[in-house]
Amino acid sequence: MPILPMFTVRALPHPEYRRDSIIPDRWVIISTERAGRPIESLPFRLDDQAVWCPFCEGRESETPNEHESLREAGTSSDRPGWRVRVVPNRFPAVRSVDSSGPPSDHHQQPGIGQHEVILECPHHESQLANFSTEQFYDVLWMYRQRMRYHHDMRQFRYAQLFKNVGAAAGASLEHSHAQLIAMPLIPRELQAELDAVATHWNETRKCLYCELIDRERHGPRTIGESSHFIAIAPFASRFCFECWILPLHHESHFDAIDDVTLTIFARDLQRLLQVLSHSLGNADYNLIFHTAPFDDERNHYHWHLEMIPRLTQAAGFEWGTGYAINPVPPEQAAEFFRDRLARPKQSIADGLVTPEVPKGV
Amino acid sequence: MPILPMFTVRALPHPEYRRDSIIPDRWVIISTERAGRPIESLPFRLDDQAVWCPFCEGRESETPNEHESLREAGTSSDRPGWRVRVVPNRFPAVRSVDSSGPPSDHHQQPGIGQHEVILECPHHESQLANFSTEQFYDVLWMYRQRMRYHHDMRQFRYAQLFKNVGAAAGASLEHSHAQLIAMPLIPRELQAELDAVATHWNETRKCLYCELIDRERHGPRTIGESSHFIAIAPFASRFCFECWILPLHHESHFDAIDDVTLTIFARDLQRLLQVLSHSLGNADYNLIFHTAPFDDERNHYHWHLEMIPRLTQAAGFEWGTGYAINPVPPEQAAEFFRDRLARPKQSIADGLVTPEVPKGV
Repeated sequence: MPILPMFTVRALPHPEYRRDSIIPDRWVIISTERAGRPIESLPFRLDDQAVWCPFCEGRESETPNEHESLREAGTSSDRPGWRVRVVPNRFPAVRSVDSSGPPSDHHQQPGIGQHEVILECPHHESQLANFSTEQFYDVLWMYRQRMRYHHDMRQFRYAQLFKNVGAAAGASLEHSHAQLIAMPLIPRELQAELDAVATHWNETRKCLYCELIDRERHGPRTIGESSHFIAIAPFASRFCFECWILPLHHESHFDAIDDVTLTIFARDLQRLLQVLSHSLGNADYNLIFHTAPFDDERNHYHWHLEMIPRLTQAAGFEWGTGYAINPVPPEQAAEFFRDRLARPKQSIADGLVTPEVPKGV
Repeated sequence: MPILPMFTVRALPHPEYRRDSIIPDRWVIISTERAGRPIESLPFRLDDQAVWCPFCEGRESETPNEHESLREAGTSSDRPGWRVRVVPNRFPAVRSVDSSGPPSDHHQQPGIGQHEVILECPHHESQLANFSTEQFYDVLWMYRQRMRYHHDMRQFRYAQLFKNVGAAAGASLEHSHAQLIAMPLIPRELQAELDAVATHWNETRKCLYCELIDRERHGPRTIGESSHFIAIAPFASRFCFECWILPLHHESHFDAIDDVTLTIFARDLQRLLQVLSHSLGNADYNLIFHTAPFDDERNHYHWHLEMIPRLTQAAGFEWGTGYAINPVPPEQAAEFFRDRLARPKQSIADGLVTPEVPKGV
């Protein structure tokens, strides 16, 4: 579906990174290929989409050839039999290297990169929260796998791994999937974090995030804690019920996570998504990974995952100022999560444990 | 309507500005009062809202007492007879000064400020594009008036003037209105612009925006030009059909605009909004004023208005990276606007004239 019925975008030969004319660290990706992607009308209707969903098992020919997959022994690439499958985005925001891109200068660069889609299950299912423990682990295993791939390749400096669920979160297809965009640039928000972390490290020889964890632990904004992770509602939450999951032990790169820790991460994350699904009205949400650039070997950064429910809309004030307005204090959001996590859930044996928290916040 | 039916926000005594724990220039306004505002289900239905709209003439008692209004001679405040009316927001993101706020330190400040709503017409009408020329001028006159008021008062450093139209742009009520939030802080995005402008001024003694205008003028991203204004699709447009309107003559503060120039600004802006309304599918949009802080007397900044149609959703990638993905090259957006502006429009005598632009972009 075109952006507008009355306007047809003419394809550019290549996507472009363009630097803002005023704010030097603000870049935009101009990508005409994105204009061609299917966008369903809101709200999604599962039955409608399942009929033609290109992400379902058996429709492998609807996607470009897979980068890799987790699949049954004896089955072939781009054939049924997979559990998790990674394919190039058919409507990529960026494109693999090509020599004939636009000139690269201070203001613009060719839109090189790699835009992947991680198909998280073979059957038409929109909810990670409903996955089996094994399937959920396989999904996170593949997240790590793709990040390791790009880390090893060193073709790009960073890969933004993210997931959009529901129309309000910017999803255009409902079949459970994540995306990864590998780029030659360090994103503006990550750079701001890296700068803050570096400044703090130089002054104190301590990690800013480790200190954040120490400060928040057992406090009113702590949602829960397991053997390896803590979930908090950040002090300056931009979104209602925003939640960050951070590893308790300092680690700069998500893809360094070992299998055992990944199992715990999967269990903790799924538990939080179940609260989102069952107790927050099945809210649309984004998952956004923050991890150190591939070429950053200083180990000062502290990877984490941001879960942002999309219950409110960014409006003129937010776009104009860069400041968010949030009607739900994170202390109340954390309390809500703690309460729901404390309720027994048969399908999940353990996971995040709610700590004792001072009352009366 | 609460944010979620199953969750009731407990009111904080005061809104708070909170600084992000990691990125020092990122602030969030935590405001529980915003949770109480009415939010209609999408899409808006004019007939439904008109029945109970608190912004219509005759329902003055539904809003707090007015700050000021343009009204018929002989009519009283908070009574019918007004053309444009400014009232405090009933669900303010910030609150007027009060001595009992939270402590002010590096991490947080009391959420002081002033959150106003500018009711742009007495009758239930959602579209600025359809206003009479006189009514449209009155609206912009009041925008200037409120900015002058806060400029003169010097109680706050900045006032963000903005307008949300339609649900996708974050509007909760459809009756045509703008908003203004006066604050003690300089917003992050404006500060980034001020920094860039100051750096460039120190190096060249020239205004970055004046140079931008010189560079773009008559080029492929120029939408149109009148005696006093130029409209361009910015080189790194974040949104499809994003449009900036800049005064041709250098001026740092919007509220310094004189009556004659305001007339021209009103005509030019309305013409662009008519294209948005008639040729861009009546797209939801934001108007965002960028102007120098009240206490900035250096005159290095160059005020402008950003018009951003909301045809696509910011998703995980945009929130994670701070980079936008835009499928419509601004050169094509500008061409679209130029084509539509060139068509005769009986209701508007003149206004933005489409310049000759090199073809084949």
